Amino acid sequence: MTQPNPLPPLLLAGLTRLLGERLSTSAAVCAHHGRDESIFEAMPPAAVAYAHNAFEVVAIVNLCREHRVPLVPYGAGSSLEGHTLATRGGITLNLQQMDQVIAIHDEDQTATVQPGVTRKQLNAALRDKGLFFPIDPGADATIGGMCATRASGTNAVRYGTMRENVINLTVVTPDGQLIKTSRRARKSAAGYDLTRLFVGSEGTLGVIVEATVKLHPLPESISAAVCAFPSIDAAVLAVVQTIQVGVPIARCEFVDPVAVRAINAHSKTGLPERPHLFFEFHGSDAGVREQIELVQAIADEQGGESFQWAHTPEERTRLWEARHNVYFAALQLRPGCRSVVTDVCVPISRLADCVNQTAADMQKSGLIAPMVGHVGDGNFHVQMLVDGDSAQEVEQAEALNARLVARALAMDGTCTGEHGIGLHKQGFLLDELGDAPVALMRQIKRAVDPHNLMNPGKIFAF
Amino acid sequence: MTQPNPLPPLLLAGLTRLLGERLSTSAAVCAHHGRDESIFEAMPPAAVAYAHNAFEVVAIVNLCREHRVPLVPYGAGSSLEGHTLATRGGITLNLQQMDQVIAIHDEDQTATVQPGVTRKQLNAALRDKGLFFPIDPGADATIGGMCATRASGTNAVRYGTMRENVINLTVVTPDGQLIKTSRRARKSAAGYDLTRLFVGSEGTLGVIVEATVKLHPLPESISAAVCAFPSIDAAVLAVVQTIQVGVPIARCEFVDPVAVRAINAHSKTGLPERPHLFFEFHGSDAGVREQIELVQAIADEQGGESFQWAHTPEERTRLWEARHNVYFAALQLRPGCRSVVTDVCVPISRLADCVNQTAADMQKSGLIAPMVGHVGDGNFHVQMLVDGDSAQEVEQAEALNARLVARALAMDGTCTGEHGIGLHKQGFLLDELGDAPVALMRQIKRAVDPHNLMNPGKIFAF
Repeated sequence: MTQPNPLPPLLLAGLTRLLGERLSTSAAVCAHHGRDESIFEAMPPAAVAYAHNAFEVVAIVNLCREHRVPLVPYGAGSSLEGHTLATRGGITLNLQQMDQVIAIHDEDQTATVQPGVTRKQLNAALRDKGLFFPIDPGADATIGGMCATRASGTNAVRYGTMRENVINLTVVTPDGQLIKTSRRARKSAAGYDLTRLFVGSEGTLGVIVEATVKLHPLPESISAAVCAFPSIDAAVLAVVQTIQVGVPIARCEFVDPVAVRAINAHSKTGLPERPHLFFEFHGSDAGVREQIELVQAIADEQGGESFQWAHTPEERTRLWEARHNVYFAALQLRPGCRSVVTDVCVPISRLADCVNQTAADMQKSGLIAPMVGHVGDGNFHVQMLVDGDSAQEVEQAEALNARLVARALAMDGTCTGEHGIGLHKQGFLLDELGDAPVALMRQIKRAVDPHNLMNPGKIFAF
Repeated sequence: MTQPNPLPPLLLAGLTRLLGERLSTSAAVCAHHGRDESIFEAMPPAAVAYAHNAFEVVAIVNLCREHRVPLVPYGAGSSLEGHTLATRGGITLNLQQMDQVIAIHDEDQTATVQPGVTRKQLNAALRDKGLFFPIDPGADATIGGMCATRASGTNAVRYGTMRENVINLTVVTPDGQLIKTSRRARKSAAGYDLTRLFVGSEGTLGVIVEATVKLHPLPESISAAVCAFPSIDAAVLAVVQTIQVGVPIARCEFVDPVAVRAINAHSKTGLPERPHLFFEFHGSDAGVREQIELVQAIADEQGGESFQWAHTPEERTRLWEARHNVYFAALQLRPGCRSVVTDVCVPISRLADCVNQTAADMQKSGLIAPMVGHVGDGNFHVQMLVDGDSAQEVEQAEALNARLVARALAMDGTCTGEHGIGLHKQGFLLDELGDAPVALMRQIKRAVDPHNLMNPGKIFAF
C-alpha cells in the first residue's frame, strides 16, 4: 500500500475547524477508504472528511482548491473499477451521512434525495406511496454513486438506467459553485444537458450533493420465475426473441452453470447446474398473464423447462437476493480469491455469439469464471476468480478481459455497460471511441476542473 | 433584413472548389435560409453550402475555421426559436441532401441515418419491418435537427424524447475532427455522455453528420379517440390521473376550444368547440382494451363525453394530421399574422393550475391564442397570433410569454419543454437555472469552440 503525502497543515486546520471530529486521519479509516471491490492495490487518502450538507461540501471543495489538494467523492464504496481509490492521496469526501430523503412528490412520481441515500433506503421510504425506484445494480449503492457511474442493473431493460431516471442534480463544481442542473419537469430543452454530463462523470467534474430521480408506479401484478435451458445458446436466444417481439419484460437475467453452483451453495436454492434465465414480469393481472404466455412459448421453442414460480413477495425477494448475492457467493467458490469482473454490452443481435465465444474462451482458461448478465440489454459479466497474489493469474484474467472487450468492440459494443471506466478501463475507452472523442472529454474536464483536483486519474490520466 | 458581410474571397474560392454549384450566394437562397417560423427579423447568411457527405462537412468546417467565418447547420428549417438565423452572417450549411438511411438493424431495433433524413422518411423506410421511430414533433423535421434541439412531441409520454432515443451521433467538431460519440449498444458507461452533450446543443458544439436512433416494435393494436370535456380543468385533471395511475398511454394531447375552432375550419372535423383530449393507445389487443376502460372511467369522472373513435389507420392518420396541422390552421384564424409560441413544461401536479392561470391571462389579453399540449409530459404551447408589424402587439405577446415562463418556473418547471433556447429564450434560461449553470455551459462551449464559430449567438450570446 502506497502512503499518501500528508496534508498541508493549513488545510488540515481549516478542515478540522469546519468538521471537528468529522475529519479523520486515522490510518484504519484512510485504509478502508483506499480500497474497493476492484483488484487494484489500495490507495488511501491522507484524510477522510464526512460532510453533513451541501454548504460543507462547498467549503471542503474551496479549501482543497486553495491548497491544490485532490478530492475523491465516496458513497457506498461498491465500485468494481477503482473509482474511489485516492490515486494522488488528498481527501476522500465520504457522503454517506448526507442520507436524507428530502422530498417525495408522489403526484409527480419524483423523489429528491441527498447523495448518501441508498436505493434500498429510498424504496423503504416509498413503501406506502404505491411507487418505487427501479434501478437496481445489486449492491445497496448510494444514489449519488449510482448517478456518478451511470449505474443500471437488473431491470434497466424495462425502466432504463440512471441516464433515463435522473431529472436533476445539485452539484458543487470544482470552483465551489453550487449549481442545479435542471428544474423538476419531466423533460426540458433548456440548454446543454448538464444533468447527463454529470451522470456518469465518475466524480471528475464535481460533487453531487442532491439528486431528483423518477419513480414508477408499483405494478398491479408482479411475477417472477426461473427457467433452465439445455445450453447457453438456447437461453440467450430466448432472451433475444423476447426483446425482439417487444415483451415489456421487467427483468431478464442470465445465470450460467458455474454461477448456479455458487448460488446453490450460498442460498440453498437447489437449482440444476444448467444455464438459467431469471424473469420478472410487471403489469396488470391480464398483462402479466399475457407476457408469461408469450415468454413461456419462446422458452419452450428453445427447449427451456417449465417455469418455476416465485409466487409470494417473500419468494420473489429470496429469488432476487440469490441472484444479487452471486458476486459474494462466487467468491466462496475459491476462498481468499479476488475478482476480475468484465462488463461488456453488445447489440442484442450479437449477444448469443458474444456469450458463446466468451464461454469457450473461459473454459479453455481453466479459471473459475461464473457468468451472469442483464441480457435483455445485451450486457453480461464474467467474474474471474483469481489469486490476487499471483501475477500470472491476474495477467491471465486481464488478457481474457482484453480479448472479451475486443470481441465486444468488433460487434459494435462497449467495454462497459454499467460499471464505468474508473482506473481499470482507460485503455479500453480509447480502443472503443478513438483518440478524438476522449480528447474532447478531456477538453471538457480541463475547462471545468483546470487544476485536476476532482477524482484525478479516473476515466483518463490527466 | 440586415445584409451579411461578404465572404473572404479565398474562402469563397475554397468552398466553390469543394462544392461547385452546391455553394450558393443567391440572394433568394440566402434569404430563404435566413428566416424560420419564429418572429425574428430575417438574418441571412452570405452563402449556403449543400453538403453530400461527412468529409465535405469536415472540409467546410476547416475552411470556415481557417477564415474565422461562422457556420449555421440547417435541417428542415422548422425551428420556432430562431435557431437557424445567421446572426453573424457567414455560411449556412444545409444538410437536407444528406438524406440516406444508412442501416436498419431490425434485430437490434436501431436505425443509422444521415442528418437530413426526415422522421416521415425514416418511418417510410421502416414500413415492412414491424418497427417505427416514435418521436413526432409535428413538423416533418430532420433527424439531425431533432437531435440538435432535443425534440419530442406527441408520444414522448410513452416513448421518451430524443434524449432517450439517440444511441450515438457522428459529429464534426469545430476543430474538424470526425467523432462518434458512442457504440451501438443500448447502454454504456464509457466516459462522459457525449451523445447527450450534443443532443440539445443546437448546433453550437459541432455539426451532426450521422445518428443512430432507437426503433420500437409496432404495437399489435393501436386505437385513437377524441373526448370533449366541460372545462379545461376537467380535461387536464383527466390527464393527470391517467399518468398517476400508470396507464402506458402513447399519446395524450390537450386541445383548447380556440384550437378546436382552427382545426375544424382547416380539417373539416366538426368537433364541438370545447376542451378536448386526443388519445392514442398502444399495446396488445387485451392491453389496449384495458387501457381504454381505465381512461374512459377517469374521463367519465371528470364529465368527459363518450370517446369518439378513429378506428381505421386512415381515420387515425386524419385525426393526427388535424392535430399536427393546428399550427398552420391557427395562422388562418388571423390571416397575415405571425405566431409567438410558448413552450413551458411543469411537474404534472402543477399542470392544471398552470394551464388554468394561463388561459385566464390569455382571455384577458384579447389576443387570439389557441392552446395545445403534450399534457402527459406537463408540456403545453400557447400560440399567440400577432400582427408582426405591430410593435405593441408583439410586446404584449412577449409580456404574456414572460408571465407564463415566470409562472412555470415558480412551479419548478422549465421555459422550454422541447423547442430549445435559440435566440428567443436566452433570458429565460438564466431565470431558470441561474448564472452559474449557464456559465458552466459557456465554459464548455468555449473549450469546444474557442473561436465561437458554430451557430454563434444561440443558447447564449458569447
